[in-house]
Amino acid sequence: MKEIVYLNGQFLPRSEARISPDDRGFIFADGIYEVIKYYGGKPFRFGDHILRLKRSLGEIGLSFDAGGLKEIFEGLLAKNGLGNTQAGVYLQITRGAEKRVHYFPVGINPTVYAFAFDFPSSKEKLEKGVGVITHEDIRWHRCDIKSVSLLPNTMLYNKAVEVGAGECILIRNGFVTEATHSSVLGVKGGKLLAHPLTNLVLPGITRIVIKEICESSQVEFAERAFTKDELYAMDEIIIAGTGSEIMPATSADGNKIGDGKPGPLTKLIQDKFFELTR
Amino acid sequence: MKEIVYLNGQFLPRSEARISPDDRGFIFADGIYEVIKYYGGKPFRFGDHILRLKRSLGEIGLSFDAGGLKEIFEGLLAKNGLGNTQAGVYLQITRGAEKRVHYFPVGINPTVYAFAFDFPSSKEKLEKGVGVITHEDIRWHRCDIKSVSLLPNTMLYNKAVEVGAGECILIRNGFVTEATHSSVLGVKGGKLLAHPLTNLVLPGITRIVIKEICESSQVEFAERAFTKDELYAMDEIIIAGTGSEIMPATSADGNKIGDGKPGPLTKLIQDKFFELTR
Repeated sequence: MKEIVYLNGQFLPRSEARISPDDRGFIFADGIYEVIKYYGGKPFRFGDHILRLKRSLGEIGLSFDAGGLKEIFEGLLAKNGLGNTQAGVYLQITRGAEKRVHYFPVGINPTVYAFAFDFPSSKEKLEKGVGVITHEDIRWHRCDIKSVSLLPNTMLYNKAVEVGAGECILIRNGFVTEATHSSVLGVKGGKLLAHPLTNLVLPGITRIVIKEICESSQVEFAERAFTKDELYAMDEIIIAGTGSEIMPATSADGNKIGDGKPGPLTKLIQDKFFELTR
Repeated sequence: MKEIVYLNGQFLPRSEARISPDDRGFIFADGIYEVIKYYGGKPFRFGDHILRLKRSLGEIGLSFDAGGLKEIFEGLLAKNGLGNTQAGVYLQITRGAEKRVHYFPVGINPTVYAFAFDFPSSKEKLEKGVGVITHEDIRWHRCDIKSVSLLPNTMLYNKAVEVGAGECILIRNGFVTEATHSSVLGVKGGKLLAHPLTNLVLPGITRIVIKEICESSQVEFAERAFTKDELYAMDEIIIAGTGSEIMPATSADGNKIGDGKPGPLTKLIQDKFFELTR
């Protein structure tokens, strides 16, 4: 089946989707994105994703009317036969094409690109967990903005892939912030820990869901940064994200986490998360 | 006259140049660029630019044969009637188009985009100087790589433009690093100061030229970071770059620098620079 994508008001075959190389998304990474997961045709936390999208757009001063996105996404799922499965929708909005100037030009049309893709859960990894590595967090200081300025994320994730690890956890000034494309939560003494929602981390939507699960399950959720040594000494580590879902990390830099198997709190949260999504 | 650009082996009208929105330059800012200035058809410090390009490519693990670039650039100048003027050539190389994965896919063709543009010196500004502002340096920690992951640079430069300033000087942990798209040098007591060439600044080619001018003019050039307060107290400030050339900054955050006019060392370096380029 021919893949159909969405570009600037049109559904068209992927091979025909073309943009100008003068697009500021290409020249300056001057754009924002979101990835939304659909479970059997139903979007998970659609409102939260749109809210975050609008916030990101606002932070970089990009005007865009987010109305109509739901219909576009549903169109993509339908046209690609992804309406009854686990599917992702990728959306990117850039400031548009214009003569190369470092400031923000006004009066140009944003570029809107979206596509849907098969996005199954990583069953085996969710059950058995993955090993992760750590690296200094070399990213910019506005990681709360979900921008396409992602070269550092790809460089660092690539380091994980090179050694067969599932993610690369980032350390800024000694403290765990998040991972290259997911949130990081630690479990210690029955309590969940995560970096406070500052400019150094993305406000992860799966993380919000985890916090809600904790609240309804009488599990303490503390926003407190923890060090790399504390990471190694966690009872459990959770890698959380739209793609990762609730992924156990069972080793970090070769150090076994807990007994090296997904722990009870991770499993509890996984179960509750699957109830919400399946 | 129709603008002619270069894209992946072809010279073609700008309006016909099109890339895939799946290009990793668009999706991940996974690419490198250079801007070279031609004075009357002659490239200035071509070898240094190519050397830096190769280094940047190497640092992000992007294989690309830089041979043949000179001919492409000369073709662009000729086809656009820019052979006898001050012209710039912009070159961007990205990892190419591929299914969206955070790691570096192998075996795909890089995208190569280049265009030439009219690039006159800003005569009046070079004579009178510009006012600059400062802002916290929120960029990533590999500013030595000339990548297209430039959203922070555009956000920060935009702040300068909003208040009519000529550049935005960046402050990391209290120290001046560089500006959004130029190097920053201070003059104090007849000596030039610039941030050491670490991961936090781009090795500016105009800066190299300034250093050489200092050496041949018996002016001390010290690689030493200086604070924002030291910046305000400089006798002179130079904003240096391929586009800025040797630009005097005569005020910083509204504080007059020296007597508020371009100083003698700036003028000396300007003169020597113009001798080299004109």
